Amino acid sequence: MEKPPSHLIPSRSPKRAHYDQETINAILDEALFCTISYSVDNRPYSIPTSFVRYEDKIYIHGSVGSHFIREIEKGIPVCITVMLTDALVVAKSAFSHSVNYRSVVIFAHAEKVEDMARKTESFEWLTNKIVPGSWEYLRPIKENEVRKTTSLAFSLNEASAKIRTGMPNDEEEDKPLQIWSGIIPLATQRQAPVADDLSQEIALPEHLKLNS
Amino acid sequence: MEKPPSHLIPSRSPKRAHYDQETINAILDEALFCTISYSVDNRPYSIPTSFVRYEDKIYIHGSVGSHFIREIEKGIPVCITVMLTDALVVAKSAFSHSVNYRSVVIFAHAEKVEDMARKTESFEWLTNKIVPGSWEYLRPIKENEVRKTTSLAFSLNEASAKIRTGMPNDEEEDKPLQIWSGIIPLATQRQAPVADDLSQEIALPEHLKLNS
Repeated sequence: MEKPPSHLIPSRSPKRAHYDQETINAILDEALFCTISYSVDNRPYSIPTSFVRYEDKIYIHGSVGSHFIREIEKGIPVCITVMLTDALVVAKSAFSHSVNYRSVVIFAHAEKVEDMARKTESFEWLTNKIVPGSWEYLRPIKENEVRKTTSLAFSLNEASAKIRTGMPNDEEEDKPLQIWSGIIPLATQRQAPVADDLSQEIALPEHLKLNS
Repeated sequence: MEKPPSHLIPSRSPKRAHYDQETINAILDEALFCTISYSVDNRPYSIPTSFVRYEDKIYIHGSVGSHFIREIEKGIPVCITVMLTDALVVAKSAFSHSVNYRSVVIFAHAEKVEDMARKTESFEWLTNKIVPGSWEYLRPIKENEVRKTTSLAFSLNEASAKIRTGMPNDEEEDKPLQIWSGIIPLATQRQAPVADDLSQEIALPEHLKLNS
């Protein structure tokens, strides 16, 4: 990957910047949601949405009629952010409080996926990311469902990651203070599935069992 | 609150729109992080950050030297999004899959908090939101720390919420299918605090104990 343009280089905490593709991919593959921003008449708009990475692109989907899809499918510049929050960093002073996080920022333009087979594949990738192993189990997708949905791809050429890990960085003069400091880990967990009324008599498939 | 401008009205799922201030405030008070977007030369930039609501505004903080703070403190239009994800909605078809979420979108302009007392209060609100009860326990903030940090306020006048709850909405013809459908709840939890090397001998204060 080329050196990122200067606006991607975090100026305050260069040690927190990571640009290798493997680091970026790992964050993108763990996060289920991103926020997509775009500008119209120099005014910002942003919207959270689910996404999936496949090879060197990420893909989002939306109704062909949705306002935001129709804006960004034109290929205008977008900024996509992803953040995973790992821990609250509790220092001895409020000023030194921080957050352990892994984030990615992507600058890109939408490329509309027109090929029906590829478009269908992009739905399969997303479905299997959100609920691993589910695509083969579900009622097969219909051609008109593929047609009613827009699939947009975004290159990762201008992507960068920022990561903070570890314990608080208290000021030297604060270190002897008898004030507790450390981290509070945050965990996002999938809990036991809850069946709807139609599924009370249907066995939970293996791929939906916790820790399966 | 006035009727929101048309760009705030979700066109595809009007039933998911909620505009009352109480609903909006509850989402803002539960979420620790937002994504703030802005435009420069009609190009979008966005950055995740922590925030706190107090009365009819939200507040964010940043280093006085940070690039993004210096851009938005000019008062240019920003778009702030917040999303809480409550469950994955697993339907009988991939097409009907969804997510239960509570989101807020805010269109606003930064107002720089210049008054030192108010600025300090805004740090207290944020600190006590991230770690409830901690402000009084910590080493008191110093005047130069307040000076080194910018506090920006954003009005909630142009804020709207969108919420999806409940079970999948499968197509009528899919309902008899013997395919499991329901929800997978997602929970973000604070786990047991982990002390750093400086705090091995310091008792964990009451406000940091789980379920305290």
